[in-house]
Amino acid sequence: MLLQASSFFEMYADAPVTSIFMLRSQSGPAQLIRQEAFVTSPQVAVNEYVDGYGNLCQRLVIPGGTFTLESSVVAECSPTIDVYSDATYTPVEFLPDNVLQFLLPSRYCESDKVTDLATQITMGAAPGYAQVEAIRHWVHTHFTRQYGTTNSSTSALDVLQSKNGVCRDFTHAAIALCRNLDIPARMVVGYLHQLNPMDLHAWFEAFVGNRWYTFDALMPEPMGGRIIMAFGRDAADVAFASHFGNVQLQRMEVTVKEI
Amino acid sequence: MLLQASSFFEMYADAPVTSIFMLRSQSGPAQLIRQEAFVTSPQVAVNEYVDGYGNLCQRLVIPGGTFTLESSVVAECSPTIDVYSDATYTPVEFLPDNVLQFLLPSRYCESDKVTDLATQITMGAAPGYAQVEAIRHWVHTHFTRQYGTTNSSTSALDVLQSKNGVCRDFTHAAIALCRNLDIPARMVVGYLHQLNPMDLHAWFEAFVGNRWYTFDALMPEPMGGRIIMAFGRDAADVAFASHFGNVQLQRMEVTVKEI
Amino acid sequence: MLLQASSFFEMYADAPVTSIFMLRSQSGPAQLIRQEAFVTSPQVAVNEYVDGYGNLCQRLVIPGGTFTLESSVVAECSPTIDVYSDATYTPVEFLPDNVLQFLLPSRYCESDKVTDLATQITMGAAPGYAQVEAIRHWVHTHFTRQYGTTNSSTSALDVLQSKNGVCRDFTHAAIALCRNLDIPARMVVGYLHQLNPMDLHAWFEAFVGNRWYTFDALMPEPMGGRIIMAFGRDAADVAFASHFGNVQLQRMEVTVKEI
Amino acid sequence: MLLQASSFFEMYADAPVTSIFMLRSQSGPAQLIRQEAFVTSPQVAVNEYVDGYGNLCQRLVIPGGTFTLESSVVAECSPTIDVYSDATYTPVEFLPDNVLQFLLPSRYCESDKVTDLATQITMGAAPGYAQVEAIRHWVHTHFTRQYGTTNSSTSALDVLQSKNGVCRDFTHAAIALCRNLDIPARMVVGYLHQLNPMDLHAWFEAFVGNRWYTFDALMPEPMGGRIIMAFGRDAADVAFASHFGNVQLQRMEVTVKEI
Repeated sequence: MLLQASSFFEMYADAPVTSIFMLRSQSGPAQLIRQEAFVTSPQVAVNEYVDGYGNLCQRLVIPGGTFTLESSVVAECSPTIDVYSDATYTPVEFLPDNVLQFLLPSRYCESDKVTDLATQITMGAAPGYAQVEAIRHWVHTHFTRQYGTTNSSTSALDVLQSKNGVCRDFTHAAIALCRNLDIPARMVVGYLHQLNPMDLHAWFEAFVGNRWYTFDALMPEPMGGRIIMAFGRDAADVAFASHFGNVQLQRMEVTVKEI
Repeated sequence: MLLQASSFFEMYADAPVTSIFMLRSQSGPAQLIRQEAFVTSPQVAVNEYVDGYGNLCQRLVIPGGTFTLESSVVAECSPTIDVYSDATYTPVEFLPDNVLQFLLPSRYCESDKVTDLATQITMGAAPGYAQVEAIRHWVHTHFTRQYGTTNSSTSALDVLQSKNGVCRDFTHAAIALCRNLDIPARMVVGYLHQLNPMDLHAWFEAFVGNRWYTFDALMPEPMGGRIIMAFGRDAADVAFASHFGNVQLQRMEVTVKEI
Repeated sequence: MLLQASSFFEMYADAPVTSIFMLRSQSGPAQLIRQEAFVTSPQVAVNEYVDGYGNLCQRLVIPGGTFTLESSVVAECSPTIDVYSDATYTPVEFLPDNVLQFLLPSRYCESDKVTDLATQITMGAAPGYAQVEAIRHWVHTHFTRQYGTTNSSTSALDVLQSKNGVCRDFTHAAIALCRNLDIPARMVVGYLHQLNPMDLHAWFEAFVGNRWYTFDALMPEPMGGRIIMAFGRDAADVAFASHFGNVQLQRMEVTVKEI
Repeated sequence: MLLQASSFFEMYADAPVTSIFMLRSQSGPAQLIRQEAFVTSPQVAVNEYVDGYGNLCQRLVIPGGTFTLESSVVAECSPTIDVYSDATYTPVEFLPDNVLQFLLPSRYCESDKVTDLATQITMGAAPGYAQVEAIRHWVHTHFTRQYGTTNSSTSALDVLQSKNGVCRDFTHAAIALCRNLDIPARMVVGYLHQLNPMDLHAWFEAFVGNRWYTFDALMPEPMGGRIIMAFGRDAADVAFASHFGNVQLQRMEVTVKEI
């Protein structure tokens, strides 16, 4: 399916602030970028580079005053995601080299501290996809999507306590639980068609049955229509915007439609 | 300056042919991509990947029949190129690691076989930028731009004989001569504003005074207004189109304008 | 100076366990490997690969029973480390692309949560090297080196509370404080000549004055004689050994001597 | 099998010369390095780096006078190489991204100019492994191993004329012929157990049946016992020594033995 997506931000800064955005998509195994634009007002110099995961990053200095940024994309992507309940656990011995890093604990996914819960949730599930799905389903049914209950310091441990949060928090919790079982898991950020209310979105991938599968703890059912912007260990790696100074977000609009 | 550029190709194939294109630009130190599109008709699956030099490549299967491809870009780039006649030769001992590969002979730049000519052309020139400029100027004044005199097998040695060719050949000759003096040189392909007649273009960069400088053996004067698509050792690395089968190019249009 | 170093491990496992070691050094800007060996008994197949930071990793399956591993190296390295108190803060705007990741919070360095302490410790220090040195000195004087007080889940926040720990904990605390000030900081692990008691060691580097400088919160004075094995964001990235199963360390010996 | 190999060079230079060596092996899918050393006399600073293919390179300045270099290695490697006559041709459409570069013509492998010969040699052979083996066998039986008949400028085209050369030339000819058939082929350099007379060696790999296979045009039979030092498109990429100035090789000794 062909999706057109855009995100618009209006920000305000008293003084110039250096910021790093991750708001441009690239072609990859799951999507082909047909068209793409990144426009700021006022126009400023942008240093665009590729991070250690292969994501595009845009570093720029927001000048004092009002600043707007619009990123838009037209991408070919799949209307569905692969589901394969029988995919088995891939032993660490056989994981591809570059997948191993997604076994490690990270800032927002303290996988070393959730052993009891991970064990309990996946009790009875066959090692592999079924374990991940048990985790995803558990997070989906036990967590409540509620804006304003978490912030940029909230980690999986915190939210496993409160059980309130946004897609980012759902994802952190699920990732921490997967990694605890030695299942590689990584965070993905981007657009999801028909997300309601529409917003930028975060979900996760787990490596079972010798490949990555897509999971989304926020959604009741497996859904395609995703445009990936970036992936990494957790939200520390894939923040849409990192400001090194004081910036107020005054307006934000995200749209995704099929064309 | 903000440039809008596009290239359009109409091709014909009797049977499906796998082809690799290098027709999409990326942001980098010299340019920022504001907008970008890549459209084919009929629409086909594209496997887009990054080669060993960091260039974007588009692999696709041209179906039988007529096939069109349009790539367009809006990019911020410099209206001038840096010229610094006093930039000195950088000894091999001090070259950055990833620059060393551009000292090596390559398919179309037999730098190991042009010692006499390189020595003669640069006689009296100070080691470094002045040598490269002597070479560039020599090629510019001794070569004639003439379509149809060379083909995809023509190398620097061939064209140093005939002294006829297109930008690609001018560039190969200059690169071979630079490398013979242990000056790293690489081929760049992309768009040049106000090229006449307009076409996709090839030029080169040489590493002197501890950085890359842009040179163009086809142009009488240093000119900016360039959008880079790819760079590599020579045309083997940076072909706009490589067809693994029989494809006829029926029409091609290139436009570059300032906006 | 030429250092010879080795580390020997005797382990015991009831059943086969997959483990990843980071116990082999590579040549780099700060060291040249003259000689190197990696020997296990019984001999087992080793999958050696390079991680995302460029470190060598050795993945292998420890068979059931007693297993020994000896890694040794002869390396040329500097007898001193550079100290430059006047090195100034490098604004985020000007940091090299691949340095930016070391600004992010990570599993063991919750840099987003130490603002008050970082501000207080560096009060009066000039932005840059002097701030890092203030942090290093504060950790050095306030922390006590005490084996057995921390474990593999202990983070900077934990140890800023207890103020007891080992080199790894000293390092995490210092890194978290530096990053809070938007100073890139990374963990380094390897050998340190004349460390007493001898052990594998961890220290950190901070990016100020446009380059990385070496700091060691455990040592009273700047000291050279270091062989680097790996670097990363924190101990999650650079564990000497990660076991995916139950392995007992029964004996460990580390030696470093000048030759 | 466990192989111990070493290469010793005695060189002489009137004045200091910058040189790049590729004389140190790394662990990889086909081999595990157990032990390794690189010793020069006099001892000099070495800048060791990784090239675009992942090979280790040693850049150093040979001081005036006599200079010796000894590289030694103990490596676990396979006593045999895989042979699979039925491995089929992998269409360009399905080649892994990083294999595509080995389809391109290169300095010493003018694959674009050997169409008639490649077609003729492989007539009747099934597309894939059988074609490569037909080429390998043709080179093996038509070429004569003769030192001193070729030099560092000799390419596949040259040697397909003369049919005399060393392993490097055999390999270039075979690679050029393979690539002409759109079969990716790359040059490998290293040690071969029981090569007679013993020397550093060059062979090639071709990508058929979805993987790389080892071929050696010098040897009558498939033989294992190989330690890989480097691979690349051709000898331009993988020269054991590149001198940027005048250096005389006065003595060279290579040993390989099983331990």
